[in-house]
Amino acid sequence: MNVAVGFTGATLDRADHERNDPAALERALSDWRARLLKLDGLDPQLDQEGQLVWTSLADLPEDAEPLLLGYIAGKPHFAPLRQTERHAAARSPSLFHMLGLMPPDQASLYAAARSLIDWHQRHGFCANCGSATAIFRAGWARRCTGCNAEHFPRTDPVVIMLAEYEGKALVARQASWPPGRYSALAGFVEVGESMEEAVSREILEEAGVHTRNVRYVASQPWPFPSSLMIACVAEAEGDTLTLDANELEDGFWVTRAEVRAALAGDPTARFGAPPPYAIAHSLLRHWVDGE
Amino acid sequence: MNVAVGFTGATLDRADHERNDPAALERALSDWRARLLKLDGLDPQLDQEGQLVWTSLADLPEDAEPLLLGYIAGKPHFAPLRQTERHAAARSPSLFHMLGLMPPDQASLYAAARSLIDWHQRHGFCANCGSATAIFRAGWARRCTGCNAEHFPRTDPVVIMLAEYEGKALVARQASWPPGRYSALAGFVEVGESMEEAVSREILEEAGVHTRNVRYVASQPWPFPSSLMIACVAEAEGDTLTLDANELEDGFWVTRAEVRAALAGDPTARFGAPPPYAIAHSLLRHWVDGE
Repeated sequence: MNVAVGFTGATLDRADHERNDPAALERALSDWRARLLKLDGLDPQLDQEGQLVWTSLADLPEDAEPLLLGYIAGKPHFAPLRQTERHAAARSPSLFHMLGLMPPDQASLYAAARSLIDWHQRHGFCANCGSATAIFRAGWARRCTGCNAEHFPRTDPVVIMLAEYEGKALVARQASWPPGRYSALAGFVEVGESMEEAVSREILEEAGVHTRNVRYVASQPWPFPSSLMIACVAEAEGDTLTLDANELEDGFWVTRAEVRAALAGDPTARFGAPPPYAIAHSLLRHWVDGE
Repeated sequence: MNVAVGFTGATLDRADHERNDPAALERALSDWRARLLKLDGLDPQLDQEGQLVWTSLADLPEDAEPLLLGYIAGKPHFAPLRQTERHAAARSPSLFHMLGLMPPDQASLYAAARSLIDWHQRHGFCANCGSATAIFRAGWARRCTGCNAEHFPRTDPVVIMLAEYEGKALVARQASWPPGRYSALAGFVEVGESMEEAVSREILEEAGVHTRNVRYVASQPWPFPSSLMIACVAEAEGDTLTLDANELEDGFWVTRAEVRAALAGDPTARFGAPPPYAIAHSLLRHWVDGE
């Protein structure tokens, strides 16, 4: 397998066993080596090498709470949570630029912090009873102050896949994407279905193509806001497309040579490939390499 | 691959394109062929062949709302939601019995209905602002009556895996399980990590074993309350166990012959295998068959 994917490889020790231990959290907070992630809203700050910038807990804003991400080389690493801060749904232009600069391990660490903060900011209340919730487990859960229900950060599994037919793969684009950009189809896994069933359902819904023999390729986290991307290839039973116009603006079957040109950034390529940090890029590369 | 797993194979057409179309929902509700799932709390009712029992919309309780599961053979199928009903966290003894009787496609359909109903019942309020939420998208989402935030059913990815070392696999048990039952290790995928990273993290946390070369095997939904189970095998770098006593009561390495005896229900087997509808069973079978 060994497919290189973005947003992976952080050396973070998540220290799950410490999350229920208030004394351990106190020790981490009073550790002089503790580091605090430097953020501008939900955007990171990067140094010249694309590494995340960290500061000390002394810089924790008055209205922020520290979330214990875990330990790197024995040092506690925290992210700052401003519970009442609100963010635009869209990613900032500078973030798109920064995602291209961060090594995968830095993007991975950032993904954990971003998804966690964003989840807290949108879960200040209990879905079960409407009361306010409060942080517990060192920042990895919230508990209701009314009914005591416990809530945990959400991770949504998303399948992203290439349908394959007679040596060609299906790519498509949404109207909101950069001009010329095409990628794999994708969609959320629903309750009551397997990954493989979700892959076939989504390809049928979005492109009108029946598939079989779904093969898993690779996975990555995607922190916008909090998905687990699961990349697959499926065998199509035909190549007639009926695109769902609500979801897709265009789509077509491409050859390995066409995908190779797109991945190489060739200006004459038939389409523009997704960026290297997206698993769709890894999936296309895996496919042109003949799996 | 072709690993047989439980909770899969429903022939349900989820009709995603109709969910945003109130006229389509009206047509489905007034279709005389419409069927309503018969439930006792969250438990299903089964006929002699283990098939789910359905009734008509005329039997929808006064205080219930119909959720459109989708279409089977062109007929709309609904599940009844009693928003204010509350359930015990534990599964009923009769449900355990019924899970052993249902064919996988029936269990799959039941899983979709159960997870969806349970999610609605625990999400009557907006996590973002605390106001009441109301159903939309034909039962596949809720919208806040205060801030208009949209909420979608939750599916939690869970990795479940065998560590493998010199021809043996690691099984373990939790204190709450039936006597003698051992299974694969498992844990929730967290924000900011891939499936493969979650597999290695969980095995290290729970058993103290470092692993590499994680291989995906199969997936299944698990509606207690709403997980996507992702089964994997990982190569262990050693066989010294340091079990997490908070999570596990016991664990040991087993040979293929020992797993075969357990799967066969041999009363002299070293351990009792998980039931056939659990993906841990499929994973153990896949492993003894030599992948």
